[in-house]
Amino acid sequence: MSNAGPDDPRRRISLRTTRMEAFSDGIFAIAATLLVLDLMIPAVTSKDVSHQLVEQWPTYVAYLVSFATIGNAWLNHSVITEYLARADAILLRLNLALLFFLSVLPFPTHMLAEYRSNQGDERIAVTVYGLNLLAISGFISIVWHYALWQRLVGRDNSDEDVRALTSKLDPSLVSYAVVIGIGLLRPWIAVLFYLVIALFMIIPFRAVLREARRRRGS
Amino acid sequence: MSNAGPDDPRRRISLRTTRMEAFSDGIFAIAATLLVLDLMIPAVTSKDVSHQLVEQWPTYVAYLVSFATIGNAWLNHSVITEYLARADAILLRLNLALLFFLSVLPFPTHMLAEYRSNQGDERIAVTVYGLNLLAISGFISIVWHYALWQRLVGRDNSDEDVRALTSKLDPSLVSYAVVIGIGLLRPWIAVLFYLVIALFMIIPFRAVLREARRRRGS
Amino acid sequence: MSNAGPDDPRRRISLRTTRMEAFSDGIFAIAATLLVLDLMIPAVTSKDVSHQLVEQWPTYVAYLVSFATIGNAWLNHSVITEYLARADAILLRLNLALLFFLSVLPFPTHMLAEYRSNQGDERIAVTVYGLNLLAISGFISIVWHYALWQRLVGRDNSDEDVRALTSKLDPSLVSYAVVIGIGLLRPWIAVLFYLVIALFMIIPFRAVLREARRRRGS
Amino acid sequence: MSNAGPDDPRRRISLRTTRMEAFSDGIFAIAATLLVLDLMIPAVTSKDVSHQLVEQWPTYVAYLVSFATIGNAWLNHSVITEYLARADAILLRLNLALLFFLSVLPFPTHMLAEYRSNQGDERIAVTVYGLNLLAISGFISIVWHYALWQRLVGRDNSDEDVRALTSKLDPSLVSYAVVIGIGLLRPWIAVLFYLVIALFMIIPFRAVLREARRRRGS
Repeated sequence: MSNAGPDDPRRRISLRTTRMEAFSDGIFAIAATLLVLDLMIPAVTSKDVSHQLVEQWPTYVAYLVSFATIGNAWLNHSVITEYLARADAILLRLNLALLFFLSVLPFPTHMLAEYRSNQGDERIAVTVYGLNLLAISGFISIVWHYALWQRLVGRDNSDEDVRALTSKLDPSLVSYAVVIGIGLLRPWIAVLFYLVIALFMIIPFRAVLREARRRRGS
Repeated sequence: MSNAGPDDPRRRISLRTTRMEAFSDGIFAIAATLLVLDLMIPAVTSKDVSHQLVEQWPTYVAYLVSFATIGNAWLNHSVITEYLARADAILLRLNLALLFFLSVLPFPTHMLAEYRSNQGDERIAVTVYGLNLLAISGFISIVWHYALWQRLVGRDNSDEDVRALTSKLDPSLVSYAVVIGIGLLRPWIAVLFYLVIALFMIIPFRAVLREARRRRGS
Repeated sequence: MSNAGPDDPRRRISLRTTRMEAFSDGIFAIAATLLVLDLMIPAVTSKDVSHQLVEQWPTYVAYLVSFATIGNAWLNHSVITEYLARADAILLRLNLALLFFLSVLPFPTHMLAEYRSNQGDERIAVTVYGLNLLAISGFISIVWHYALWQRLVGRDNSDEDVRALTSKLDPSLVSYAVVIGIGLLRPWIAVLFYLVIALFMIIPFRAVLREARRRRGS
Repeated sequence: MSNAGPDDPRRRISLRTTRMEAFSDGIFAIAATLLVLDLMIPAVTSKDVSHQLVEQWPTYVAYLVSFATIGNAWLNHSVITEYLARADAILLRLNLALLFFLSVLPFPTHMLAEYRSNQGDERIAVTVYGLNLLAISGFISIVWHYALWQRLVGRDNSDEDVRALTSKLDPSLVSYAVVIGIGLLRPWIAVLFYLVIALFMIIPFRAVLREARRRRGS
C-alpha cells in the first residue's frame, strides 16, 4: 500500500504492523481473560450458596462492563489497524500507552467489585475506574488521529470509511467524561452507564441499518 | 477470495479475519491455561500426600472436561475461520460473545471442583457449568450460521464440507441441553457426560473413517 | 507446497497450519510465563531476606527446569511446523494432547518446589513431574511421526533435515524414562538430570559444529 | 529477502521468523499483563481507602517501571525482527534466554513493591531488579549482534538504519550497570533512574527530531 521506495526518507521509520497487531492482541486477550480471576466463588458455609452467588452481583456487573469495554476497544483497534498501511516509531509508542491502560484495567475492576459496602470508598473506586476507561478511549482516539495526521492510513480506504470511524471514536470521550461526573454523585448509576456505553458501541446499529438499507436497495 | 471491488457496497464492512483469529487464539489459549491455577496441591501435613492427591480427583475431572471443551471449541472455531473469506462487523461481535463465555469458563470449573461435598451446592455448580458449555457451543453455531447466511464463507469450499461442519456443530446443542437436565437429578453423571461429549467431538471418527475408506479405494 | 488441487480427495481434510501455530504459541507462552506466579517472595520477618531467598533454591531450580523444558519443546515444535506443508484433523488433535500436557506442567512444578521437606512426598512429586515431561516429549514425537506417516511434511525439505529432527526427538524419550527410574531412588538427582537434558537439547551443539565445519570448508 | 536456494548449505539452518515473533509477542504480552496481579487493593478497614491507595505509591512506581521496561524491550525486539531476513538455531536459543529474563521480571517487581520498609531488604530487592533489567537489555544486544555477525539481517536495510539501532541498544547496558551501583547506596534513587531510562528510550526523541528536520527540509 505504501509506495515509498528504498530512497524515500519516510521509509526509514516505516514498520510493518504485524508485530504491533500480535502484541496488542496478546494484551487485549490477556487483560480480558485475567478478569475471571476476580470472580471468587463463595466459601462452602452453612448459608445457601445460591443466595451468596446472587449477592455477588456487583462483581458480575464489574466483570461484564470491563469485558465489554475491552471487547469494544479491541473492535475499534482492529478497524484502525485494518486501515493502517504502515506504522512508525511514534505510533508504536502511542499504542503502548493504550496497552498500558488496558492491562491495568483489572485493578480498578477489582476495586469496583470490593468497595460497594462503603459510600466513600465506592465513589473513589468508580472514579478511578472511569478515568481508566477514559484513558483507554482517549488513547484509541489519539492513535487514530495520529495515524490520519501522519498519513499512515492506506489510500485505498474511502474518505467515508475514515470519517465513519472518526465519528464513532470521538463522541465516546465526551460520554466517559460526563459519566465520571455522574459517578461522583451516584457511583452505581455511573457503572450502569459504562455498561450501556460499551454495549451501545459493541452492538453494530450502523452496520445493521446499512445492511437493511442495502437489502431494500438491491 | 472475495471479489468485491472498491465500489461494491459490501466492501465497506469487509474485514480481514487475521486479527479476529489472533485475538480468539489468545483467549482460547489463556482460558485453557488459566485452568491450571485451580489445581491446588495439598498442603504438607501428617497425612500421606498420595492419598490427598487421589482424593482431589473431582478437581482433575473438572480440569480435563474444561480443557477438552475449550480444545474442541477451538477445533470447530479454527475450521470455521478456515472457511471464512472475510468478516463483517456483526460477525466480530458474535465472536466476541463466544469469547466472553470461553473466558468465564474457569469460574464454573472452579465451582465444580469445590462444591462436591454438599448435594445442593453441587447441583447449582453443575447446572451453571452446563449452561456455560451450552452458551459456548451455541455461539459457535450462531457464528457459523451467520457466516453462511451472510455468504462470508469462501466460494471455493465444497457444499459437502460446509454441510459436514453444520451437521457436527448443531447436534452438540441438543446434547448439552439434555445433559443439563440430567445434571439436575444426578450432578456427577452429567459431568461425566460432558467429558464424553468433548472427547467424542475431539476424537475425529469421521476423519479416521474417511482416511480408512480412502486407503481402501486407492 | 501441497500441490493437491480442488478435486484431490486429500484436500478435504487439509488445513492451514497458521491457527495451529498461533494457538500453540499462545499455550507455550502462557505456560512458560505462569510459572513465575510460583516464585513466592519471602515474607518480611526478623530473619534476613537474603538467607531466605537462598533457601528457596529448589523453587528456582524447578522454575528453571520447567522453563527450559517448555523452551526446548517450543524449539522442536517450531521446527516441526516449519517442515509441515499442511495439517489434518488428526494432527490437530494430537497437537491438542501435547498442549494439554504443556499447560498442566505448572502443577507438578509447584509440587516439586513445595514437597522437598518430606522424602516420600518428594518422590511422588519428582515422579509425577517426570511423567509430565515424558508425556510432553512423547506427544512431540507422535506429532512428528504422524506428520511423516501421513506425508504432511513439505516435499522441499531434504531427507537429511527430516532424519536429523527424528534423531533428535526420539532419544529424549528414552532419557526421560531412565531418569524417572532414577527419581524413584534419588529424587533430586533426577531433577538435576532433567535440567541437564533440557539444557543439552537447547544448546545447539549440532548447529555449532555444522557452522564450524562450514566455515572451515568454505 | 534471503536469496539462498535449496542447494545453499546455509539453507538448512534457516527458519522463518514468524513463530519466533509470535512466541515472543506472547511472552512480552503476558509478562506485561501479569504485573497487574501485584497491584493489590487495600482491604476495607476503618481507615480511609484513598490514603491507603496513596501510601501504595511504591507499588505503582514498580509497576510502571516494569511495564515501561517490557514495552521498551518489545519496541527494540520488534525493530530487530523487522530487520531480520531469517533466523537460525542459535538465534532462537539466544531469544529464548531473553524471554526467560522477561518472564521472570514480575518476581523482582513484586520484591521491589514489598521490601520498602527495611533498608537491607530494599537494597537486595533493587539490586536483583537491576540485574534482571541488565540481563534483558544484555540479551537484546546479544541477539542483535549475533544477527549482524551471522548476516541474518536482510540486505535491503540501509547501513545507517543498522548503525542507528546498534547505537541505541548498546549504551543502555552501561546505564543499567551504573544504576545498579547507585542502587547499592540509594535504592529508591536507582528505581527512579530505571524509570527515566525506560521512558527516555520509549519516547522517540530521534524520530521526533528526524520528522521535524524532514518537515523543514521538504
